[in-house]
Amino acid sequence: MIGKAAGGAAMYQAMTSLGHAAESEYSGPIKLSPAKKGASVVVLGAGLAGMVAALELRSAGYSVKLLEFQNRAGGRCWTLRGGDEFSELDGTRQTVGFAKGNYFNPGPWRVPHHHLAMMDYYKRFGIKLEAFNQVNHNAFVHNSKAFGGKPQRFRHVQADFRGHTSELLAKAANQGALNDAVTREDTEKLLAGLRAWGVLNKDNRYVASERVSDYRGFDVEPGGGLMPLATPSEPIGLHELLQSDLWSQINSGNMYEFQTTLFQPAGGMDALAKALERELKCHMRYNTKVTKIAQSERSVTVHFTDANKPGAQQSVSADWCVCTIPASLLSQMDIQVGDAMRSAIESLPYGSSIKVGLEFKRRFWEDDERIYGGISYTDLPIQMISYPSNDYMKAGPAVLLGAYSFENTDSYRFASLTPNERIRLALAYGGRIHPQYSEEFSNGVSVAWHRIPWTQGCHGVWSESLRKEHYNNLAQVDNRIVLAGEHVSHIPAWQEGSVLSALDAVKRLHAKAINV
Amino acid sequence: MIGKAAGGAAMYQAMTSLGHAAESEYSGPIKLSPAKKGASVVVLGAGLAGMVAALELRSAGYSVKLLEFQNRAGGRCWTLRGGDEFSELDGTRQTVGFAKGNYFNPGPWRVPHHHLAMMDYYKRFGIKLEAFNQVNHNAFVHNSKAFGGKPQRFRHVQADFRGHTSELLAKAANQGALNDAVTREDTEKLLAGLRAWGVLNKDNRYVASERVSDYRGFDVEPGGGLMPLATPSEPIGLHELLQSDLWSQINSGNMYEFQTTLFQPAGGMDALAKALERELKCHMRYNTKVTKIAQSERSVTVHFTDANKPGAQQSVSADWCVCTIPASLLSQMDIQVGDAMRSAIESLPYGSSIKVGLEFKRRFWEDDERIYGGISYTDLPIQMISYPSNDYMKAGPAVLLGAYSFENTDSYRFASLTPNERIRLALAYGGRIHPQYSEEFSNGVSVAWHRIPWTQGCHGVWSESLRKEHYNNLAQVDNRIVLAGEHVSHIPAWQEGSVLSALDAVKRLHAKAINV
Repeated sequence: MIGKAAGGAAMYQAMTSLGHAAESEYSGPIKLSPAKKGASVVVLGAGLAGMVAALELRSAGYSVKLLEFQNRAGGRCWTLRGGDEFSELDGTRQTVGFAKGNYFNPGPWRVPHHHLAMMDYYKRFGIKLEAFNQVNHNAFVHNSKAFGGKPQRFRHVQADFRGHTSELLAKAANQGALNDAVTREDTEKLLAGLRAWGVLNKDNRYVASERVSDYRGFDVEPGGGLMPLATPSEPIGLHELLQSDLWSQINSGNMYEFQTTLFQPAGGMDALAKALERELKCHMRYNTKVTKIAQSERSVTVHFTDANKPGAQQSVSADWCVCTIPASLLSQMDIQVGDAMRSAIESLPYGSSIKVGLEFKRRFWEDDERIYGGISYTDLPIQMISYPSNDYMKAGPAVLLGAYSFENTDSYRFASLTPNERIRLALAYGGRIHPQYSEEFSNGVSVAWHRIPWTQGCHGVWSESLRKEHYNNLAQVDNRIVLAGEHVSHIPAWQEGSVLSALDAVKRLHAKAINV
Repeated sequence: MIGKAAGGAAMYQAMTSLGHAAESEYSGPIKLSPAKKGASVVVLGAGLAGMVAALELRSAGYSVKLLEFQNRAGGRCWTLRGGDEFSELDGTRQTVGFAKGNYFNPGPWRVPHHHLAMMDYYKRFGIKLEAFNQVNHNAFVHNSKAFGGKPQRFRHVQADFRGHTSELLAKAANQGALNDAVTREDTEKLLAGLRAWGVLNKDNRYVASERVSDYRGFDVEPGGGLMPLATPSEPIGLHELLQSDLWSQINSGNMYEFQTTLFQPAGGMDALAKALERELKCHMRYNTKVTKIAQSERSVTVHFTDANKPGAQQSVSADWCVCTIPASLLSQMDIQVGDAMRSAIESLPYGSSIKVGLEFKRRFWEDDERIYGGISYTDLPIQMISYPSNDYMKAGPAVLLGAYSFENTDSYRFASLTPNERIRLALAYGGRIHPQYSEEFSNGVSVAWHRIPWTQGCHGVWSESLRKEHYNNLAQVDNRIVLAGEHVSHIPAWQEGSVLSALDAVKRLHAKAINV
């Protein structure tokens, strides 16, 4: 009734306040009806999508087999710790040198609170979450061509952009320039709003004052007893601020995906993968390199070799197959599906992304610069430096994200280098923001997703036209095979995409299976 | 040299980027020179100020005695847990009924990262800090007279205020209304900045779109597989937004005091108080009601009674005295100081503040509304609801802050009620934001600071004219007595104020003591 009587937005507001509207179409843990007696499924790839599919199908009564290329489950839900080893496509091997207790998430590293499926699995497995600090007002924004290359505090740039734009709009409003767009009654409210939002004075101006310093910080902070009196700070001028381009670095924390409360699992992103792996251990076959996926009217047969002892072909058959192998690899395999799905698999390009993790001897960003977690942004190819959102003030070595370039030329540039060269480059660029780098560096690791054998790319990159032509064909159940993973979702590169895709795939496969 | 060559702001930026400028005048742990042999000090009040003073003077070699009115140290640095009991001025007693592991901070509850003295003591005592979530984009803003009394999501109001004001300013800029204030060259940058900040489309308009929903959230979220397609959300109209006054509730997280990274000690605010208390236990005399503070040319004598067995007067003498008793109580005592200090003590009014802590059977704000920590704001007398920033997703009962009114008539209104009435009122008002209140309520506790015997108010309230007339007189060393506490600072109502005041008092007292 509410839905019929009201328009979309009003309805949504009414329902939300009554607690009835879901924030997404995910509506809680799935519960499949019982499987047919003796029904079986083979799941390819033990990343989150594969493990979630296996878990839910097993719950419904399917006999489940999980084939995984690596010697561990989790896929891109991956955490690197001291002693871990891995290789790139050309065989270049890295061994992680971090101190005990330190870690680095080379793939996903954040979980939005509205990724409801992820949150449900975290709850179900009792995974402890801690706040991931995305926006740190005291971190830096940095443009190598502005302010003589000196990093600025996020809080200064953000407060000053708010202040100056509010002053300009208040001025325009007072000069009658908005008369077409804003009624007189609303103008009063607008001015009051701008004075609050922009911290304008009674003359609607944004100028140095104690009140403005209450937002952007003081030059000398207020103290106790007879300590020196506080000294307000001076805002950056409008011209300098606009020409610095630093306003382009202050808005990402307002994106829904990065809004508070954003989470990370305590101890590393792989906490959920490890919990799922424990649960599914007895169904798992590791080091299994799939070479062919065949299907008939009655079953699916997956051919594979042992990744460590290549040669002898083996195979496994089941009634159904959930394949979560990334399209980047699947396109290189012999998979027996219709032309539409085949063409979709072959058409999807994969985005590039690189990350560099750097361990330093101490948390100089906390000790010296009072940056506790969060992200500094820069126009340099490292793009950002992200400080750990955990173990604040802990003595001893700590790991930060020293470079993260995503889907751009910098990520290809980094990927073309050796791991050591990438680390050296991250140190050289990052040292322009934190001069302590050279003195405090201990060791590093880098992951260039295009060079990781089991993904050969970071994630599926869907353009609007690609989606139109291929997405539905990729997502359909093709006879006895269904695909799942972030590439079969509208949330690419996010774990929520993989999990929702797996849940949806499993529902549709099951609906078919019980009706065959 | 940098200081001489450059102006204030430029100098500060230069020094900050070199890591040389302190964020406040606090420059690290103090180290007093050795005290005179046999020198002694009596410290009155074992709150943070008193304990910090005692600790640092003891380190310098003073013989220290600490007199405390209560049977515990910490003062307003106080955490309530199940089983705790306390009384108000009229004897009304509350026993806290929280489940094991739950707690409530009735006094200070947040620590800004730039409260450097507090941060140093946390580090020194190994206190584990966790992020306090001040801004939660998914929490509510609420005006009982707007949107039919329905709470709105913070993210909607903030994104829409940014969007609409950016659109208006872009329009004014394009119409030439800013030509006096902004050059043509800067106008280009301004428009680019507004498109980013306000999420405007290529025509500089703020209208429903996928991109806008990437900031304010979708009506139907993107999914996986063949789940329903995403549906963008519809922004609130400019008129409705402005008239709702909700723009007044979206800015406090931009204040320097509340900016990221804001902290809370894990397990309760009293963690530092308890650590200091353990350290100073052997110098502490609890249940000690000071009745008179006398001083001569050679010593200070403090007269007191046992708070539990009143009657017999006792006394203790020392060379020096640090008195951290709030001025609200000190003004009622016989303290032998000069007229200037006496007049300062008598002139300082104390602010009112009330908090209500409510325990519910489950975290419905997380389960039902996806609010993990942070604050919902309302125009109702409870002013805000703050959700716990710890133990996210934990099953079982949890405690939230159900009312916090500070220095306004609501706080007096609440203070005039019995504790049970305050809780009922907090439930009635809060239930208009969270209908689950009535079903899920378990128990509550309230602290009205004006009715707490050992403070009789929340904090010293300095007007500009009061400061001018009395502050220096209050902060001076008066012969052998010096006062400390948040009331002797420029950071009233914050723990940093107490600690800085104590450190500054101790430095000046010590400088006098070694030269006498």
